[in-house]
Amino acid sequence: MSVTDDARMKTARRTPLMRALGVVALVTFMSAPVAATGQSRFESSAGPLKAETLVDGLSYPWSVAFLPAGGYLVTERPGALRIVRNGKISEPVAGVPDVWANGQGGLLDVVLAPDFENSRRLYLSYSKPGDGGAGTAVMAATLIEDAEGARLTGQQDIFEMNRFTSRGQHFGSRIVVADDGNLFVTLGERGQGERAQDIEDLAGAVVRIAPDGSIPQDNPFVGEAGHDALWSIGHRNPQGAAKRPSDGSLWTVEHGAQGGDEINKPHPGANYGWPVIAYGENYGGGQIGEGNAKPGMEQPVYYWDPSIAPSGLAFYDGEMFPEWQGDLLVGALKFQLLSRLDMQGDEVAGEEQLFKGAFGRIRDVRVGPDGAIYLLTDKADGELIRISRANDA
Amino acid sequence: MSVTDDARMKTARRTPLMRALGVVALVTFMSAPVAATGQSRFESSAGPLKAETLVDGLSYPWSVAFLPAGGYLVTERPGALRIVRNGKISEPVAGVPDVWANGQGGLLDVVLAPDFENSRRLYLSYSKPGDGGAGTAVMAATLIEDAEGARLTGQQDIFEMNRFTSRGQHFGSRIVVADDGNLFVTLGERGQGERAQDIEDLAGAVVRIAPDGSIPQDNPFVGEAGHDALWSIGHRNPQGAAKRPSDGSLWTVEHGAQGGDEINKPHPGANYGWPVIAYGENYGGGQIGEGNAKPGMEQPVYYWDPSIAPSGLAFYDGEMFPEWQGDLLVGALKFQLLSRLDMQGDEVAGEEQLFKGAFGRIRDVRVGPDGAIYLLTDKADGELIRISRANDA
Repeated sequence: MSVTDDARMKTARRTPLMRALGVVALVTFMSAPVAATGQSRFESSAGPLKAETLVDGLSYPWSVAFLPAGGYLVTERPGALRIVRNGKISEPVAGVPDVWANGQGGLLDVVLAPDFENSRRLYLSYSKPGDGGAGTAVMAATLIEDAEGARLTGQQDIFEMNRFTSRGQHFGSRIVVADDGNLFVTLGERGQGERAQDIEDLAGAVVRIAPDGSIPQDNPFVGEAGHDALWSIGHRNPQGAAKRPSDGSLWTVEHGAQGGDEINKPHPGANYGWPVIAYGENYGGGQIGEGNAKPGMEQPVYYWDPSIAPSGLAFYDGEMFPEWQGDLLVGALKFQLLSRLDMQGDEVAGEEQLFKGAFGRIRDVRVGPDGAIYLLTDKADGELIRISRANDA
Repeated sequence: MSVTDDARMKTARRTPLMRALGVVALVTFMSAPVAATGQSRFESSAGPLKAETLVDGLSYPWSVAFLPAGGYLVTERPGALRIVRNGKISEPVAGVPDVWANGQGGLLDVVLAPDFENSRRLYLSYSKPGDGGAGTAVMAATLIEDAEGARLTGQQDIFEMNRFTSRGQHFGSRIVVADDGNLFVTLGERGQGERAQDIEDLAGAVVRIAPDGSIPQDNPFVGEAGHDALWSIGHRNPQGAAKRPSDGSLWTVEHGAQGGDEINKPHPGANYGWPVIAYGENYGGGQIGEGNAKPGMEQPVYYWDPSIAPSGLAFYDGEMFPEWQGDLLVGALKFQLLSRLDMQGDEVAGEEQLFKGAFGRIRDVRVGPDGAIYLLTDKADGELIRISRANDA
């Protein structure tokens, strides 16, 4: 029985009333009172918030994208892409790549092309099986929905790491479509730290590719030593990335070791230091590399020690929460919270920690076209949760 | 029986072995393994740390100062000033002021004059009883230690709030001796928020006075509307303050309501906004005042939401932890931790949370002349704890 089947069975054990109400099982609820209606209320700096579980029964959901005509595309790490509409989860979309679903690997990010409404093109990142184990790859494909069901066509692997390994750690990966149409892809170092400093190795890096997988000729290493696809190096495991709407800049969040999770604003050609420099320390103690600073290596914008285990990253940009416009939202796995970093320019002016312990491990955070905040929870019976303003305070 | 007597009795119940080892009762120890020797080891970004309890049995200790010839002066909030030397706590120093020991009030800060070695002068802040209740005051006095014991002479109240109330909340108060010899005193708004915006009221403010209590003529409100003693207004309850050694600037930390604890760098004549603007919200929910920003009111350098309940504040300046040189250390009551804010200039580049839950509520944090970090714990059987580098890693 696959992990996905297991999740389906758990869902089936929920009572009809629970299903009807879309109720979320709040076993470790710690932050705020729970209403009996299946919705949850939380206090925040923007006033009372309402959390609605739009759907549960997702198997380790990893990423969510908003379909222009309504509904959501959700990846499940074990390997399924599903469409969520009206509280229902579709059968798996046909035509997704075979994934290496081990450890942190599997089907990862899903992002729509800017012209999706016409082209129906999307991008998936995933752990691609191959010689030596697996590596992170990106597939472009076209989503068809018709009487025969939902399926991908025109699949094309537009990117893959240039060295595979059987380790289960640190695939990254998020895809960000830049304002110029090129793609940033964040890549973990596969548990092999030294690869993050190897300028011929694409692990532990951010790469920049054109939508067809070709190399933009203004990439920083083109014409220099180092792989032409590289944008920045020295990353450990960036599982979150977002474009800042106000200026189009790329921001990432990455897992540190024991302490030292980092927010970075990756500049072209820059080295973010892993494993030579880092905040925090090695698991079990002991300094990492040469300390936490070195000339020629970049400092993070912000770091956490101990680690919150950051996952998804989004800039708030919407009408629902004007108080939070331009702020960074960071989902946390280990600390089971949503962190709002109050951004003043490129600096962090304060941190608000929301929903601590209420939902469990938060895997993804996105801001919807409606200005609400959407979360995915990392579990066998994972939820898609919508956070909105509670106006009935 | 006074609170102090109660603490003494609790101490007497400790076993001789516990006393000999200076062992700290780690009921809620969460962060790291405890050695069997009565010392505790903790991991940190600067490597392993050692925590030694220099003394326990202090009754709600509030502030510690380092005597140049060795030993420590410690205030106990119920009203005693004690000298700690060689693991022993002295009888109360005679001659301290009568204090209004209710709620958060009592004997608060103790700071040595810069020429203490010759003058033996020191400053105490305290809750002074008077018409209408109590207000924060500052006493200057001379410490005598001879065959007759330790006592204060030449006591002089050099400052007091200009309006007293019987409320038990928000006295502040810390005293910082500036490089020019003048004193900054931080003052809470006594649970009466509107007083923080009243420029004739000294509650909810930072004041600046000369060592004799007179008003420096370059104070910002001299010759303007407003009280001549004021340095900055709009503070809620600043229980921590420190001078940055590198440039002599004043920094404060204050309690927010439900969320919104603030680090500020108070500029002369500036308004820090309470209760008109604040991060966080009122207890029980609801927006504070007009929101979190307003023209003419200052933004904090950094804030926490939810509140950590910050108490003491210190800049790290010493040889023991070069990694932390120039960083801010903040003790936390509610969150029971020491926060290290990694300072890059005036910006916070990251936060490290140390000792979470290990010691209970942390009331004061100071950096000793030996470069070690000293903590006081806020309880009836309070400890003075020395944090140093564990070199036997």
